[in-house]
Amino acid sequence: MEPEGKPRGRRPVTIVDVAEHAGVALGTVSRYLNDRPMRESNRRMIADAIAALGYRRNAAAASMKSNKSQFVGLMVPSLGQVHARLIDDLIRLLRLRGRTVLLYRHEQDARSFADGLDFFANHRVDAVVMDGNEQLWEAAKEQLPDNVPVILFDNDLPGIVADRVLVDNRASSALLVEQIIAAGHRRIATVHGPLHRSVARDRLAGYKSALAAHNVPTVAEYICNGDWTEEGGYFAVSRLMALEAPPTAVFSANYNMTVGVLRWLRDNGLTIGWDISLASFDDVELFALHRPGITAVAQPVPRLAEAIAATIIARLEHPEAQQRHVALSGELMIRGSVASVGTQEAER
Amino acid sequence: MEPEGKPRGRRPVTIVDVAEHAGVALGTVSRYLNDRPMRESNRRMIADAIAALGYRRNAAAASMKSNKSQFVGLMVPSLGQVHARLIDDLIRLLRLRGRTVLLYRHEQDARSFADGLDFFANHRVDAVVMDGNEQLWEAAKEQLPDNVPVILFDNDLPGIVADRVLVDNRASSALLVEQIIAAGHRRIATVHGPLHRSVARDRLAGYKSALAAHNVPTVAEYICNGDWTEEGGYFAVSRLMALEAPPTAVFSANYNMTVGVLRWLRDNGLTIGWDISLASFDDVELFALHRPGITAVAQPVPRLAEAIAATIIARLEHPEAQQRHVALSGELMIRGSVASVGTQEAER
Repeated sequence: MEPEGKPRGRRPVTIVDVAEHAGVALGTVSRYLNDRPMRESNRRMIADAIAALGYRRNAAAASMKSNKSQFVGLMVPSLGQVHARLIDDLIRLLRLRGRTVLLYRHEQDARSFADGLDFFANHRVDAVVMDGNEQLWEAAKEQLPDNVPVILFDNDLPGIVADRVLVDNRASSALLVEQIIAAGHRRIATVHGPLHRSVARDRLAGYKSALAAHNVPTVAEYICNGDWTEEGGYFAVSRLMALEAPPTAVFSANYNMTVGVLRWLRDNGLTIGWDISLASFDDVELFALHRPGITAVAQPVPRLAEAIAATIIARLEHPEAQQRHVALSGELMIRGSVASVGTQEAER
Repeated sequence: MEPEGKPRGRRPVTIVDVAEHAGVALGTVSRYLNDRPMRESNRRMIADAIAALGYRRNAAAASMKSNKSQFVGLMVPSLGQVHARLIDDLIRLLRLRGRTVLLYRHEQDARSFADGLDFFANHRVDAVVMDGNEQLWEAAKEQLPDNVPVILFDNDLPGIVADRVLVDNRASSALLVEQIIAAGHRRIATVHGPLHRSVARDRLAGYKSALAAHNVPTVAEYICNGDWTEEGGYFAVSRLMALEAPPTAVFSANYNMTVGVLRWLRDNGLTIGWDISLASFDDVELFALHRPGITAVAQPVPRLAEAIAATIIARLEHPEAQQRHVALSGELMIRGSVASVGTQEAER
């Protein structure tokens, strides 16, 4: 379907044009571009020709020569609320350091993930930042040359040689659940993510450790998989509230599931902070404006982006250095959605 | 700071290695890679060598030869709520068509914008998708070769030759303001964006046209600049509510400003749907869960992404075709934040 005929604009200027305009050999232009010694008169004529013709060096060609592409491959499931802010920050910070992010969305699909690594390899990225995903990685890791360093974020991938910049999901979750316990709750449920993901396991472990530390019994039916999704959160809370002894409080382990929980509670006329208390991992601005405000742990997005960028640069400067593991704490935002259990229990 | 010594992994395999392994000339490998005729025995030996060595074609080199990079440059102010979803969809749709998005954030900064176009030019993007921005474009357009097609989204840039995929901001805003008028309001204010942006002008024009069509007087002091930001929305509504005759309803022209308006109303103890009615351009899932729900116009993100992707592909296939202008309607979401004016006026 490519139509024939003349191109729409001017054709790109090449070093052949520069050589002709300057009246020097092609090799001389090449020497100039590679900063090698030459007669001053030639240097001046080539500089003039470059300015006159508007010659623009081809980044692809330059990258082949330097063997550094300045590209960083960034592999994410998709651009959800939390990821979008982190990616936004990370692109900005890497640009300030002269690096360009090639973004790839794998959508938890094995084929996409392999295509993404192949894409990164073909564009000779200097490093890959990815959320760890055991199944996807095992099936696709051959796509990436051994000498490309990997930086894990968001989700750990135990056992691989990589730098890691993660949120301390376990401690942050425990902190949130302790808020619920401190308000007097004993029947505390959690809606967790898929347990093949370390981040889901860690948030669940934080929930369990807080209960154990305060002698609150763990009840198997209070632990519900919401699959990280809004629909999953919706159905999880519907199952929880149908129990003979429903929980008085719920810890929802990510933003999407919290939206699902909020929707179910709204659809069923339950009042947060009265009929049920709620705390969420992940924070957004509208959680503060909800009535009541949603108590949450916010991921420290600017600090995460800064740590990832610094880790990439350090790795590229010192390929042989010991791998780092950065673990950042979440920020606890206390609002009205976790209410004292006393009042409503007394009314029942 | 580059440490000396051996590289961390194996060095990339080149066509020199392939030629040596296959026992053929370098030129023969090159002919093979360019699908040119050769002896069948050579073809088989080269294919075997490529498989044995794990040779990977360098995409940068391939792109230099084909003169098509398969890159599409995407220039955005930043990854805000609405943009993130659109970008997410667009990257996915272009990948399905074999294209890769190079994302650049300009942050409304002239230097960044020029750097972005330069970056696109250096990577020989086949097309650029950008939000129109007159000042930034005028100062930087020389960075982009004439033959790179431009597709405008989000904000128009009147007068330039480009394809356009935009929301019908004027009609969608008028629709929303008509909801407010239908509820009996006559004192209707708007918080608008910076008027050097066509999208801000169009949403304001929609507000004015709805008032005019229903004989509601336009009051100059009811028209307030909120600068697209949360802080701007906060201060705009504080000025509006300090007027001698404050409005009974506010049309906020984007998501960030709406968050600012909600925050000011919360901070000042005003009840939405009682003390004041509110409608917003841009919709997010939590607007449905707010109490009351926020009446809003949602941008048709999946349809926008689809239209942008289709427009890019059509343009690359038919460089000489007439430019398209796609205008998509927003989707009206009626919730509880616009209340009948009768009740509260009667109480006063």
